[in-house]
Amino acid sequence: MTNFEEKTVHTKPIFEGKVINMQVDDVTLPNGKTSKREIVKHPGAVAIIPVTKDNKIIFVKQYRKPLEKTLVEIPAGKLEQGEAPEVTALRELEEETGYTTSQLTYVTSFYTSPGFADEIMYLYKTSSLEKVEQPKAMDEDEFVELMELSLEEAEKLVAEQEIHDAKTAYAILYLKHKGLK
Amino acid sequence: MTNFEEKTVHTKPIFEGKVINMQVDDVTLPNGKTSKREIVKHPGAVAIIPVTKDNKIIFVKQYRKPLEKTLVEIPAGKLEQGEAPEVTALRELEEETGYTTSQLTYVTSFYTSPGFADEIMYLYKTSSLEKVEQPKAMDEDEFVELMELSLEEAEKLVAEQEIHDAKTAYAILYLKHKGLK
Repeated sequence: MTNFEEKTVHTKPIFEGKVINMQVDDVTLPNGKTSKREIVKHPGAVAIIPVTKDNKIIFVKQYRKPLEKTLVEIPAGKLEQGEAPEVTALRELEEETGYTTSQLTYVTSFYTSPGFADEIMYLYKTSSLEKVEQPKAMDEDEFVELMELSLEEAEKLVAEQEIHDAKTAYAILYLKHKGLK
Repeated sequence: MTNFEEKTVHTKPIFEGKVINMQVDDVTLPNGKTSKREIVKHPGAVAIIPVTKDNKIIFVKQYRKPLEKTLVEIPAGKLEQGEAPEVTALRELEEETGYTTSQLTYVTSFYTSPGFADEIMYLYKTSSLEKVEQPKAMDEDEFVELMELSLEEAEKLVAEQEIHDAKTAYAILYLKHKGLK
């Protein structure tokens, strides 16, 4: 396999935030020339497909400031530093839906935007939900509304572009392919 | 539907690059409190699923600096300013694979990272490829290697995490569901 590795000559830090950091790397290309790479550093994230006893999928409706619109998504959240993805998944499930589970199934993982960001998304599924009496609270700047939808209803929202993000589109296609249980 | 809109109080530009811009918005939350949103602005992108006459899918192998690793992906690229996604799709298909098509099918679109970026990805498919004699050249800082794989071979690379990005994982699941033609 050809080696297309780009060697870092210099890293210029641009921004350090609470969600992302940004940097510009000067790199040496395979042909010896140099170029710049604009890179977003992200801690990684999890998303969970929660399926109820009645074969409904639990979604969260949430305002997404980068898009200036409200999207319907499966529950998701960022990894805390050093946190195992399974732990994040259970925390976000409880905070956003009020459920927990002892049967979390790993589905897959993928990079969301490999051209400019290092964010990795770990995807889980559970069809064994247990209500939590006093669920943990969400972050104080998070506002979500829950929706329980059948697979058919979810597909309708895809067509209407209310479901319009990669992880949720993947999740719906996955359920169509593998079934809800 | 509850309105969770976050009103922008102030926008602080952080970075203007050739691929992305970055800004931090001060916002008013639905409860009247304020918060900061770290936002990456991206021009949007397209990806194409090219299927050959022999039922192979054409992939590109490419070094992704943000991940410091080589990924196998379906052909993709950024929108130029004001460019229709179909035009970008045909350009990237020709530059990266040396093929064009007169039958480009729109599959879907999705936001790749709605938590911190506005990137939208338009996904197309074609199973009607025509060789271009003298294809347009790629950007001078792009280096890719082509691979033609059956759907089964592609699924193996997903399991081995050489195929490890959202658009390509979605594409493979889509082909499994809908068939190659």
